[in-house]
This record gives sequence, C-alpha cells and structure tokens, in this order.
Amino acid sequence: MWWEEKTMRTFRCRLRQIPGALGRLLLTLGEAGGDIGEIRVLRQGTTHVERDIVVFADGPEAMEQLIAVAGTVPNVTLLEVRDDVLEMHQGGKIAIRSRYKIDSLEVLRRVYTPGVAEVCLKIAKDPRLVRRYTAIRHFVAIVTDGTAVLGLGDIGPRAAMPVMEGKASLMETFSGLSGIPILLDTKDVDQIVEAVVAIAPTFSASQLEDISAPRCFDIETRIQDRVDIPVLHDDQHGTATVVVAALLNVEKTVGKPLRDSRIGVVGLGAAGMAIGKMLMFFAGRTVLGADLAAGALRRFEGFGGTPSSLGEIMSSCDVVVTVTGAAGLIKPFMVRPGQIILSLSNPVPEIDPAAAMEAGAAFAADGKAVNNVLGFPGIFRGAVDANVPRITQDMLLAAARTIAESAPKGEIVPSPLDLGLHRNVARAVARVALEKGLNRDDLTGYFD
Amino acid sequence: MWWEEKTMRTFRCRLRQIPGALGRLLLTLGEAGGDIGEIRVLRQGTTHVERDIVVFADGPEAMEQLIAVAGTVPNVTLLEVRDDVLEMHQGGKIAIRSRYKIDSLEVLRRVYTPGVAEVCLKIAKDPRLVRRYTAIRHFVAIVTDGTAVLGLGDIGPRAAMPVMEGKASLMETFSGLSGIPILLDTKDVDQIVEAVVAIAPTFSASQLEDISAPRCFDIETRIQDRVDIPVLHDDQHGTATVVVAALLNVEKTVGKPLRDSRIGVVGLGAAGMAIGKMLMFFAGRTVLGADLAAGALRRFEGFGGTPSSLGEIMSSCDVVVTVTGAAGLIKPFMVRPGQIILSLSNPVPEIDPAAAMEAGAAFAADGKAVNNVLGFPGIFRGAVDANVPRITQDMLLAAARTIAESAPKGEIVPSPLDLGLHRNVARAVARVALEKGLNRDDLTGYFD
Repeated sequence: MWWEEKTMRTFRCRLRQIPGALGRLLLTLGEAGGDIGEIRVLRQGTTHVERDIVVFADGPEAMEQLIAVAGTVPNVTLLEVRDDVLEMHQGGKIAIRSRYKIDSLEVLRRVYTPGVAEVCLKIAKDPRLVRRYTAIRHFVAIVTDGTAVLGLGDIGPRAAMPVMEGKASLMETFSGLSGIPILLDTKDVDQIVEAVVAIAPTFSASQLEDISAPRCFDIETRIQDRVDIPVLHDDQHGTATVVVAALLNVEKTVGKPLRDSRIGVVGLGAAGMAIGKMLMFFAGRTVLGADLAAGALRRFEGFGGTPSSLGEIMSSCDVVVTVTGAAGLIKPFMVRPGQIILSLSNPVPEIDPAAAMEAGAAFAADGKAVNNVLGFPGIFRGAVDANVPRITQDMLLAAARTIAESAPKGEIVPSPLDLGLHRNVARAVARVALEKGLNRDDLTGYFD
Repeated sequence: MWWEEKTMRTFRCRLRQIPGALGRLLLTLGEAGGDIGEIRVLRQGTTHVERDIVVFADGPEAMEQLIAVAGTVPNVTLLEVRDDVLEMHQGGKIAIRSRYKIDSLEVLRRVYTPGVAEVCLKIAKDPRLVRRYTAIRHFVAIVTDGTAVLGLGDIGPRAAMPVMEGKASLMETFSGLSGIPILLDTKDVDQIVEAVVAIAPTFSASQLEDISAPRCFDIETRIQDRVDIPVLHDDQHGTATVVVAALLNVEKTVGKPLRDSRIGVVGLGAAGMAIGKMLMFFAGRTVLGADLAAGALRRFEGFGGTPSSLGEIMSSCDVVVTVTGAAGLIKPFMVRPGQIILSLSNPVPEIDPAAAMEAGAAFAADGKAVNNVLGFPGIFRGAVDANVPRITQDMLLAAARTIAESAPKGEIVPSPLDLGLHRNVARAVARVALEKGLNRDDLTGYFD
C-alpha cells in the first residue's frame, strides 16, 4: 500500500563548488515540504558541479512551489526539471520477447511449422505436457476492470494499465513469471467472471487487481469455483499476507503474542476483510471488525468475525489495523496505552504513527512499509511451481512467516529488492502445497 | 500454409574421413524418403568427423525407418537421435520481459508506486495518452479456440499453444509487436465473441487463429462490429494476402493479366472464402467458387462470388486455387492447357505441381511457398502504427503488392527472413490508412 499520490521530478542543478551549497538547497526543499530521492553527480568541474536530484512533492501544485523555491537558493542554478517517470513509461514497461532468434529457416521450421505440429500432437495426446512444452507454465494473468486503482478510484481499465505493467515488471524481476495484463471493458460482475473463466487455459494463475469492494469478493470466489488454477485478489490476500508478516515482527518487539491478543480491524473493504480473515486463521479465534456498511459487517460475521465499532475496537483491542481511507480518523485520545496500531490508509493514515506513540501506543506504523510487492511474486511463483488448483490460507500464512523472518533486525519487513526473499517465499508456499497434498506436480528436487 | 506434419530429428553421426561417406549417408536417407536440413560439423578429427544432421520424415514411423537405414551405411556410426524441436519448446518459446531492471528503490518507485499514479491520472484525463505511455500500443492478442489447428483439426486450445507462441515469436522478430496468446475455453460463438470483446482494451489489434469455418466468419464480423481495434482472422486474410501476392508474380511469368483472367477457387473454407473475396476486390469482377457445402456456396454468393463446380472451374478457368484439404482431388486429365494452378492443401496438395505441369499447366505450385508469415507481421504492424479501427481490403491488397514486389527474380514470393520485407509491408499498409483517412494518429515522419 504505497499508493501515495506523490509527484516526482528530477531537478538538474548547477551548484557552485563551495561548502554547504548542496546542503542549503536540500534544506530549503525539505522545509518547503519536499522529499529528496536519489542524487547523482553528472559533471564535476573546478568551480561548479552538476547534479540530478530526484524530488518528491505532495501533488503537482506542491511541486510547482518546490521548483520556485529551488530557484531562490544562492549558488544554485536550476537548469531543468524533468519528468523521468513519464519518460520511462513511453511505449510501456513490458514486452513479449521470443526466446529464440529467428534468423534461419531451420529455426523458423522448429519454432513454427512444420516442427511445431509434433509438439501440438504430443500435448493433445497427453494434456499434462502442456506445462512442459508451453509458456502457460509461467503465464499469470493480471486482471483489472480499473474500478479501484491505487488510491485513485475508478479510473477505468486503460488508465490502470501502467499499474498492471508495473506489477508485471515486478513479477518478472522477482519471480521470473510472465505477468500478462488483461484489461476488462466491463464492470458487470457476471461478464467479468465469464471473461476470466473463458481465457483461463492461457494461464497458470490469475491475479485480480484493483477491483472495487464488495464486487471483488464475489468475483474472486465465482471465478475460483470454475477454474482449476489459483485465483488471488492481490488487494485482499497479498495485502493481508504482508500485514500479518509485519504484525509477526511487531509482536516480538512488544512481547505479547499476537495469538493471545485481542485484535480489531477498522474498515472492511478488500484489504480489511482479508486481513481480518487471515488473522482469524492465524490466531484460531475471532477478530473484531468495524465498518460503516452493514453489508460489510454481515460478510465479516459470515467469515467468523465479530461485528463491532470503532469506539469498541479502540478502547478494547491490543492490536488495531485500520484500512478505511479516512485520513485522521483516529484521534490521539482514542489510543489505548500499550496498543499496537497499524494505520494503513494512504496517502494520509488514520493516525500519524508519531502521534499514536506519543498517545501511549506500544508500536505504531503507517502504510509506507506495507508493500504488496513483498508478497505476490513469491506467492504466485510457489503456487505455479507446485501446480496447485488454488492458494490456501495455509500457503499465505507460510508466505507471511517467511517475509517476517526475512526482515532485518529492528525492521518489521524486509526489502522488496532482496531476490532471496522472493525465492524463499516461493519455496515456503510450495512446501505447504506438498505437505497438504495440493500439488499436482512432482516437486522432487525443488527444495534442494 | 506450411502445416505439413513432418517429423524432424537431429542425427548425430560419426563419419570416417573417406571421400563419399557423407554423400552415401545422405543418398541413403534421401532414397528412403528423408529430407535433409542443416548439417553442422561438431568435431573434425584426423580419422573421423562428427556431424549433426537435421532429418525430416513423413511422420514418426517413416522416421523410425530412416533411423534404421542410417545404421546400415558403411563408415557411419549413428551416435544419437535427438528431438531438438521438443527441446526448444521446453518452458515455452516466449516470455514477458520488463524493460527496466528493478534493482533500486528509485526504479521501483518509478515503474510502480508512487511514480505510476501520475501516469495513470494523465491517461484518465486524456485517454489518447494510453497509446503513448502503455504497452497497449504494441500488444496484439493472438486468439484461438483450438478448433482448426494447422492440419491437425480440433485439438483444443492448450494443444494449440505451441502454434500461438510460434506466431508471437515471429511477430516479435519481424515486427517488434508483442503477440499475446489468448486460449479460449469455449467453442460457443457467443461466448467467444463476448470474451474477446471484454478483453479488447488490452490490445491494439486482435489476430484470430485456427478457428474452424464457418464459425470463424461470424466470430470475426461480430467482434469487429463491437471493438474499435482491427480484428483479423489470419487463416482467412493473412493467407489470402500471400496467395494474391504469389498470383501477382505468376501473372508476370505467364503473361496474361490476373485482372482479365477467369478465376476459380475450389474449397470455400476460411482460406478459400477470403482468397475469393480478395481476388474479386482486386479484379473488380466475380470469381467462381466450388464447395461441397451449400452454405459455403451461399455465403460466397453473398460476397459477389459465382457458385460453380469443380468440373466447371477446371474446364473453364485460367487461374485455379484449391484449398480443399482433399489430397489428389485433381487428376491430370482435368487440367486445362495453359492453366495456372495453386494447389494449397497440406501435407499433400490436390495435384502435384510436376504432374500439373506435365498435363499442360502454364504454372503450378503447392502450399509450401505460401507462408502466412510473409504477411501478418507487417500487416499488423502497419495497422497498429496507423492506429486504424479495422483492416480493409485496400490495406491487404497493398500488403500483397509489396510482398509480390519483394520476391527475388524467378521466385513467386520473398523470404520471410527478410526484415526489410516486413517493414515495407507495414509502411504500405499504413500509407493506405493515411490515404483513405482511416488513421487516428498523426503519421508525420512515418514514411521518411
């Protein structure tokens, strides 16, 4: 849940070679509300140095102000402001690549006709061979109707494409799977189900993305009931996995086992519902849930949850997770001393972690640390490798434990750039599949 | 239409260094019905040389015989027989690749959140930007239900995957487009139409593949009526384009203009129907058609064709194209002197070209030369670059002319490996779009 609507620009600056020039620039930008990213040296002269400085602002207007103040800093010339992000998106971020260079008739006759006919016939005779001789084995659909994209809401499937491509980029980088964006030209639940079921043979798994609640619950369940590949709504279960991973590390720092804690979830949308379900599965006991929608409370109760209220949860729970989208919903006076609070809404959380700590919380964090990319690449890779027909809570919990264990000392989650993390998550998921007998392939050698 | 069901193996042989050893081996294989492909030298010793020899046979049993006779050739030891084609298909032939290496948080924040949000918002505000900032611009669906795969028939969507991947490999190699296989788990025309329409926003064009006739006619038309991207059934129009290209070169060798010729098409399936339509469009006059199915004749008549019979076509037409799937349908006595005959069925044509020539034909060829890969990469690239809502007969004819012009002297078609060919086809198609005002993008600079 890193979906803050930050504006990002690259400032190309020429700074005089005098002590404090860079420092003064960064100080000025920081005081004006800017965040600083990467700083690169482009040219180092005797009198001047040229740098590219990545700057984040809370939206386009705030960025305009930063650009204005940067121009006033002494010994600094702002040469240009670039939108590197937009440039990187030109032409899209992913592409299909042929594994073979087709530069001779011999190769053409092998990857296409006539050579391919024999491979087709082999698969027609023994359908299990489709996993060995086709790309279906690593194809994962990334399906959206564009109704709940990041924090942007219903912007439609086409405008959601950059996010789907981003997911596919991450999937390839961290798990080697081929994520294929599928944009749906309908918001009708029946039509979405029919379309995803119809194209299911193409894929080894289907990741649902940014589909609004409560439609997403039905859509996921109905598709999964009709196909024999795993279907997982990342905004539900991917998020829940990472939140549970974070809580597993928080419980260590605080001392009280999560399993014995009274837990409450505020906001029972896609993420909140799945977080509640997974915590109940983990703890083996009920979790309190609050939502303004009666339907959400009923649904939560159906999963074993206990309908409650914001007031009751804040005053009685040891652990509170909030995913409401309501900035500043929780006031400091509501915090119960010793409480663990994860306020996950973005860009502004329900309560600022610092304010929560000041009000007596034992631990508080916001959504910045809880990034889905910690989970989905390894979860899908493990499920696809094990050739399971669905992803169970057991598998997700195994993923959460692995993510928790991979965090450096003092951190609640590991870095998503750690390739070993994703490999370990995949193995943990596949191992559970093996133990529970859910795998349809022989996994001999997978754990060596 | 290269869909001969040939079996292909690699023979690893150790040959004594004496004159004629290789020659005798190849002679023996040839006399036993084998075709020889690439020959590579692996090791050159003083007394022996080791070679990999690619051998084609008419099916697995014929291959067994070739393996047996290879073992009897003096001075040759058959070390192993490998199925390279199958090995090349392990794990599939295509994959999604990220254009960016995600190895720092900076890159992660650009290709994914938070950077991506601004790109999404830009597209939401101005939908035309989707072509600039997403991969949709180069995504082409390659859709099949697996009902008419090569000459193999209805082997189902999964067994068809190696062909779809082959098409995607060719598309990337020859046009840079990203072909995305979409396998459909239904043969119901309504469901196919709904599924392809539902996922249409993902793509810049949709290529229908290996869908059986007469279902394919309705499916193509109904999808095209509902989406604003080009939909093209390659087995119809891709084939027709290449056949017309070949005929344009044949007319030069024979002397009588195609436009003034009496033309007949025997077999009005997917390919035959489209060949007939395109020839009528080109010649501006009717074409005779024969088929055993009354429905096919009625459909052909609806397009302006003249229902006829095999006998009438053979006895009265200057140009005959046969796509019946019926091996040896045409007997030498039926050939009219001076006739042009393209017998395109595979693996065995309606009449052997040599036999047709002997019976007095002015020109005869079979389906080996008529390979769809000459057409579809450039046709789709041109249509996608021009951002047209559909591909017209004008565009296909422009593609056919370009293919014809690219053939070396004395050949009726060029080599599919010629990258310039595909670029020229793309430009010809885009130019027609521009001339007819069908393009939705500014093509300034495209023809420089």
